[in-house]
Amino acid sequence: MYRSHNCGELRIEHVGQDVKLSGWIHKIRDKGSLLWIDLRDRYGITQIIIDINESSKDLVNQVKKIGREYVVSVKGIVKERQSKNPNIKTGDIEISLSEVEILNESKIPPFTIDDNTDGGDELRMKYRYLDLRRNLIKNNLIFRNNVTLEIRKYLNESGFIDVETPYLIKSTPEGARDFVVPSRINKGEFYALPQSPQTFKQLLMVGGMDKYYQIVKCFRDEDLRSDRQPEFTQIDCEMSFVEQDDVLMLFENLVKNTFKKCIGVELDNFPKISYWEAIENYGSDKPDTRFEMKIFDCSESSKGKGFKILDDSEYVCGITVNTTEPFTRKQIDQYTDWVKQPQIGAKGLIWIKHNSDGSFKSSIDKFYNHDDLLSIVGDFSKDSTTFLIYGSKMKSLNQLGQLRLKIADDLGMIDEKKFCPLWVNDFPLFEFDEDENKYHSIHHPFTSPKDKNINTIEKEPSGVVADAYDLVINGNEIGGGSIRIHNRDLQNQIFSILGFNEKEAKDQFGFLMNAFEYGAPPHGGIAFGLDRLVAVMNGDNSIRDYIAFPKNNSGRDLMIDSPSLIDKNQLDELNIKLK
Amino acid sequence: MYRSHNCGELRIEHVGQDVKLSGWIHKIRDKGSLLWIDLRDRYGITQIIIDINESSKDLVNQVKKIGREYVVSVKGIVKERQSKNPNIKTGDIEISLSEVEILNESKIPPFTIDDNTDGGDELRMKYRYLDLRRNLIKNNLIFRNNVTLEIRKYLNESGFIDVETPYLIKSTPEGARDFVVPSRINKGEFYALPQSPQTFKQLLMVGGMDKYYQIVKCFRDEDLRSDRQPEFTQIDCEMSFVEQDDVLMLFENLVKNTFKKCIGVELDNFPKISYWEAIENYGSDKPDTRFEMKIFDCSESSKGKGFKILDDSEYVCGITVNTTEPFTRKQIDQYTDWVKQPQIGAKGLIWIKHNSDGSFKSSIDKFYNHDDLLSIVGDFSKDSTTFLIYGSKMKSLNQLGQLRLKIADDLGMIDEKKFCPLWVNDFPLFEFDEDENKYHSIHHPFTSPKDKNINTIEKEPSGVVADAYDLVINGNEIGGGSIRIHNRDLQNQIFSILGFNEKEAKDQFGFLMNAFEYGAPPHGGIAFGLDRLVAVMNGDNSIRDYIAFPKNNSGRDLMIDSPSLIDKNQLDELNIKLK
Repeated sequence: MYRSHNCGELRIEHVGQDVKLSGWIHKIRDKGSLLWIDLRDRYGITQIIIDINESSKDLVNQVKKIGREYVVSVKGIVKERQSKNPNIKTGDIEISLSEVEILNESKIPPFTIDDNTDGGDELRMKYRYLDLRRNLIKNNLIFRNNVTLEIRKYLNESGFIDVETPYLIKSTPEGARDFVVPSRINKGEFYALPQSPQTFKQLLMVGGMDKYYQIVKCFRDEDLRSDRQPEFTQIDCEMSFVEQDDVLMLFENLVKNTFKKCIGVELDNFPKISYWEAIENYGSDKPDTRFEMKIFDCSESSKGKGFKILDDSEYVCGITVNTTEPFTRKQIDQYTDWVKQPQIGAKGLIWIKHNSDGSFKSSIDKFYNHDDLLSIVGDFSKDSTTFLIYGSKMKSLNQLGQLRLKIADDLGMIDEKKFCPLWVNDFPLFEFDEDENKYHSIHHPFTSPKDKNINTIEKEPSGVVADAYDLVINGNEIGGGSIRIHNRDLQNQIFSILGFNEKEAKDQFGFLMNAFEYGAPPHGGIAFGLDRLVAVMNGDNSIRDYIAFPKNNSGRDLMIDSPSLIDKNQLDELNIKLK
Repeated sequence: MYRSHNCGELRIEHVGQDVKLSGWIHKIRDKGSLLWIDLRDRYGITQIIIDINESSKDLVNQVKKIGREYVVSVKGIVKERQSKNPNIKTGDIEISLSEVEILNESKIPPFTIDDNTDGGDELRMKYRYLDLRRNLIKNNLIFRNNVTLEIRKYLNESGFIDVETPYLIKSTPEGARDFVVPSRINKGEFYALPQSPQTFKQLLMVGGMDKYYQIVKCFRDEDLRSDRQPEFTQIDCEMSFVEQDDVLMLFENLVKNTFKKCIGVELDNFPKISYWEAIENYGSDKPDTRFEMKIFDCSESSKGKGFKILDDSEYVCGITVNTTEPFTRKQIDQYTDWVKQPQIGAKGLIWIKHNSDGSFKSSIDKFYNHDDLLSIVGDFSKDSTTFLIYGSKMKSLNQLGQLRLKIADDLGMIDEKKFCPLWVNDFPLFEFDEDENKYHSIHHPFTSPKDKNINTIEKEPSGVVADAYDLVINGNEIGGGSIRIHNRDLQNQIFSILGFNEKEAKDQFGFLMNAFEYGAPPHGGIAFGLDRLVAVMNGDNSIRDYIAFPKNNSGRDLMIDSPSLIDKNQLDELNIKLK
């Protein structure tokens, strides 16, 4: 037996007991005749004390061999501490050491096992097993476990069945790139890893499963941006005989319950806003509503004053930033440069300062008099600066939306403790890709159009509203879903608008189309990004520290050094070769 | 809103209520002026009644359009049934139809949606979404969900943390064949899908996670035998600072709890038997102990009577079958043929009938007199037939073990309602492969030898006992695990006995070896086969109907027709081509 208690367990009521603990040497403090050791395990830290003069020579010699991160087990008697440490749970006691056994030695770790480690990202990923010992990462993983457990309990209590769908499925060229898996037995053929269990969960609905969920890995072979992982985890759900409101109500309650149980936060009812409302007010379909600073349309109020740049723009929009300390010219120039950088792509930034005395100063003074400016910024905007961006509607809204976030961040306008969830719905079903001259699904090809739009799909695809919805929290898309098509003819029609010919549709989704001929019920669902959800719940922006063994931006696992070369005979068996 | 209640919900107390149900048309019975419809969903069946004479023409016309497996929603009033059906939960009531809406039509299904379906295996797999509508499959999947939920609750309450390990890992040629995934970004390199999260869970222990579990898909590219799947689900667990007994106690309680909560069965304490005890008594390391009929060693008692075949055999072993009705000569001949078929491979089968009057009749009468036979079969074996098999020890025990199962099955000696779990431990660490002239791990290369054997590993590898254990229930291996090596030098020694040179060991497991240098704790764990566990708990031999979307014996998913060809440009992007 390696331990009678763990390192986070002993309290004042254990004083006098003989105990045995095992763990890692976190710290050693040597004060000559007295030696303190902090012994650490997952559950906490317990202080061990050795009085050199009162201990046997053997014991002292053993203790002298011990270094940082050694694994030891110790025996001793629990004593009340002279100077208690209220910051740790075991801070009232210490253990007077009587025996120690070194279970394993340790080299000096390449970085400190501390909340504020000196290890850089690459080093921490290479030695992830040491990084996991840090409270930060450890607590993130425990938190993630708590969240999934609560979600499972809630969904089970709501009648959902956890059904495992296959990982070795079929490649479909639509959408993101698949990871593929060569089949040895079926030579020349490939499986694909699922980008999501979408078609399988729909087939489960056709199969009468009624309420399905799964917490499941999904895979996308995309060029990785920062904070994207080639494999990620989805909370995947589907229900039969539901309309949009049924889905939203159930999953709003799921999210509320999860926040309450896991972080003690009571969320208010989630507002619903339409896609266009989100775009026009926040320049984003995943608006951060923790602060106001809404975008307003000033196309009308700003045009017709002879300022050609605006007169020629499709759209002009603005945000007004209330400032106690007015922006300096330098700050404004920085924002101008910022919006003009290629990643944002604005043509320019117009600014209008409304001073506390009611006077204006702006970059367009030459064309706009006091009243003109007042009609743009409105009367309630004293002590503020308004920024205008112009161009095509979507682009200028998007650019201004990004500036909105940047300014809020710079000025500390975001309450990091606050959670602002909302549903965004009424998305367009399609978007037109000018480069490829074809329509794409905004969500995916199985999303149902709103009933009222079904008759105008062929005539006016761009105007069709999807029966789809996203859950957004603090500017992050946490989940998304839709009511699905359950009618074969409608599904065919959608495939055809998306440019699938009949053979392609049949090859790729024939099984789903067939299934729709045998009594498919109306159904809909949602999928949440678990990695993102737990990060957002914890107030974090990066998902990487919520994943035990993440990959870097080149899709590499630095710890195991993967991907890697494989043997030629493995390739031979698979009937493939490198080009 | 598609329904006010589901199809399994209405009871006598709902009589008089207006309700709306949705589901599938299970059956229609047409008695001229009265029509009954069984409406089905996941939750049950509700009877709908239509009185043709009392209903509007429109309603009757609507109803006449409806066929088997159509999806409809119906409105009506709940009435007490005249002739109640005690076999279904809703059998006290029926719904008097007032409105019906066809939500989706259905072609005639290719097989009946019934417990005893007329659909063959291939057809059922191709139309799996229809097969899922059958109670049998549906209930299996719901049962599986209940089992995993109970296991998760138990493990969480025991302090285990569910940690997700990666699916895109590194190929290691040792063991079974990996499925590999070509990397597009890292050209010429491959990920592998995990055969199990073994090394990752060990790294989690090095990382201080202390108690880990995961219910996780694993992958093996093996030539498929019946009832093997290329992807299967494992309940994977690992603990730090434990010895074998700690692991067995915890997981024995887990299994007991799962049986109690999910099928109401209280299991007794699990016996522990050693590998050799299992082999010598049952001819198998996964003995079915629901019946006795133990194998006995009669090498000594049967030799030296001038019967050359036995005299020249390394080992002679027997089983005694108590029979009220003695075996006929024909039966005995059939068993002789059975053990001699190549899959079993016995050289022959000796039989000794011990009659009720104490006399013997046997196939070796020529060489053995009454007392000789008595000393082989023992005095307590009247009214029995004893079968002897001879040859090398392992082979003859294995052959007789298979005959033992066959006879028990033939004679109905197995109580199908009984559960006989046991732990098998003290496995050898290595087995010697005569063909390859090298040692293999019986479990895997990370299994720790017993402490007492550590000094003799190099000298006498075959004699080393592993600190490993399997859970066996009713002749099925349900789980297996071990105390792991946590010392780098010992791990190196094992790799070297297994024939890895230093470079190979470093390339494949360098990350684990490195991890062992930074304070790896003593640890051990276990993994259960979930597919098999749920099948065995339900008294089933086949796992396939416990998997929502299984593959056939060629690794194909007949429903989605996968694996399949992929586009040439997908291959190009991955930098591979077909041979």
